[in-house]
Amino acid sequence: MNGPFDTLIRVRYSETDQMGFVYHSNYFVYFEIGRTEYLRNAGVEYKRMETEDDCMIVVGSASIRHIRPARYDDVLRIRTRTTEANRRTTRLSYEIFNDASGELLATGETYHVFCDRLGRRKSLPEKYREFFKADEPQGEGAAAHRKSK
Amino acid sequence: MNGPFDTLIRVRYSETDQMGFVYHSNYFVYFEIGRTEYLRNAGVEYKRMETEDDCMIVVGSASIRHIRPARYDDVLRIRTRTTEANRRTTRLSYEIFNDASGELLATGETYHVFCDRLGRRKSLPEKYREFFKADEPQGEGAAAHRKSK
Amino acid sequence: MNGPFDTLIRVRYSETDQMGFVYHSNYFVYFEIGRTEYLRNAGVEYKRMETEDDCMIVVGSASIRHIRPARYDDVLRIRTRTTEANRRTTRLSYEIFNDASGELLATGETYHVFCDRLGRRKSLPEKYREFFKADEPQGEGAAAHRKSK
Amino acid sequence: MNGPFDTLIRVRYSETDQMGFVYHSNYFVYFEIGRTEYLRNAGVEYKRMETEDDCMIVVGSASIRHIRPARYDDVLRIRTRTTEANRRTTRLSYEIFNDASGELLATGETYHVFCDRLGRRKSLPEKYREFFKADEPQGEGAAAHRKSK
Repeated sequence: MNGPFDTLIRVRYSETDQMGFVYHSNYFVYFEIGRTEYLRNAGVEYKRMETEDDCMIVVGSASIRHIRPARYDDVLRIRTRTTEANRRTTRLSYEIFNDASGELLATGETYHVFCDRLGRRKSLPEKYREFFKADEPQGEGAAAHRKSK
Repeated sequence: MNGPFDTLIRVRYSETDQMGFVYHSNYFVYFEIGRTEYLRNAGVEYKRMETEDDCMIVVGSASIRHIRPARYDDVLRIRTRTTEANRRTTRLSYEIFNDASGELLATGETYHVFCDRLGRRKSLPEKYREFFKADEPQGEGAAAHRKSK
Repeated sequence: MNGPFDTLIRVRYSETDQMGFVYHSNYFVYFEIGRTEYLRNAGVEYKRMETEDDCMIVVGSASIRHIRPARYDDVLRIRTRTTEANRRTTRLSYEIFNDASGELLATGETYHVFCDRLGRRKSLPEKYREFFKADEPQGEGAAAHRKSK
Repeated sequence: MNGPFDTLIRVRYSETDQMGFVYHSNYFVYFEIGRTEYLRNAGVEYKRMETEDDCMIVVGSASIRHIRPARYDDVLRIRTRTTEANRRTTRLSYEIFNDASGELLATGETYHVFCDRLGRRKSLPEKYREFFKADEPQGEGAAAHRKSK
């Protein structure tokens, strides 16, 4: 793809828990939103990959490190990049920032395998290969992420 | 079916919100669990209705009235009954109690249409008709529910 | 408030279920987003109502009618209006449209009581009273909604 | 604690997505349920840790590896153990099995810090120290888990 891509979302009430922060599993939903918009920005509509090309991007593994909590109504900036791109797998990394303060709240990673609708592994269809390319790590965000591993 | 059926569940941390109570939309998930176990108790495995008989029980409308809040780790008793059963539609009602105190927390209702996997309305398959029958309203719970409408 | 207000959201993958549509309880989350943005547009930041004025807008009852399904990646238009506004309660109604096709997907209503952080009912603080006013029903959307009841 | 502890849960309809499998972020909710029941079995009611001892078990980092998908209505066995226990942090690991087939579906880990209700790190209160002890890795499950790292 062409460099990291930022997506903004606003924390929903339903995403908080009784500690008063965002419940932790929701960050993986945020990662998915970051990933979808990152792909859309590069010209790939994931919905069509599924329906027209029978290609699902399945989560094989995932991890997160929490640094500061996110709270109700915060606007979050999800920065997504590709760190590995192969025919049958890809790896993306994420940083989530509080958009108002600029503070880094969490970093994470997802590793994916391409599958057909029956869950069998397959290669990424030819037409998508130009899009799935590793981004150059760069700038402040990238540094923060590398530190987090 | 044969009378109301009770299912117990325990409130999850992820289901609370920053008010310290169960977030309201989760009650509809509880209704679904009550409905599934009520069907299972009557001999109907909903999973099989979908996969073997191409019959989905789709939510056409739903409503809830909240009386008292549910909290993290509370054990809830979901009481489910059928209030209407037709060839193409059915209506169920629910009461949710705090199982420890016996207090009624919420009452609600869901109205359903039967559809095939493409979302087209269909009649309930013959083999399920004996199961989808309205329950007699009865006892204290039923009274509480009638009052709530 | 000053008339109905429209908010756009995009359906998330996590909000779909194995039928391939949006899982029904998520519509109540969409209603909440519509309500929050409707308030924000009118000058009320709900987060501050909670933290600065100890005033929670608690859901007392809620209902929904589903007309057509929403699908993954659809952009939805949530139209929110106030139908009743009292010192201690308020009622809002919602219409959800597929933004691309203009089709009405669902209509619903939520009834609220104002509570302090301990869950005790209270009156809406003075400073918010000018904002919580019933909107005039008007136009096509309103008509569609009236028909749905 | 005294060895790994198994908790059974049943997959809810709301937890599936349009691929027909459990949506990936829900596994972290399952881990939380496994952790809560594991603590309860050892004599620790987490709800009381929060309310009576102002001690929250906050997720500092988490990871998962998916092996096979879980499906609607499957009964899952969540096996939880403590792999590290310190005054200010603890680490738990999880294996999720399909209870009917015995197949391993996912393995994961969560790392926690103890915090007060304001989110400040604190030491685990004295009275809980006897409970938070690393379990001996043992048996088949443990082996499967080690392999997964």
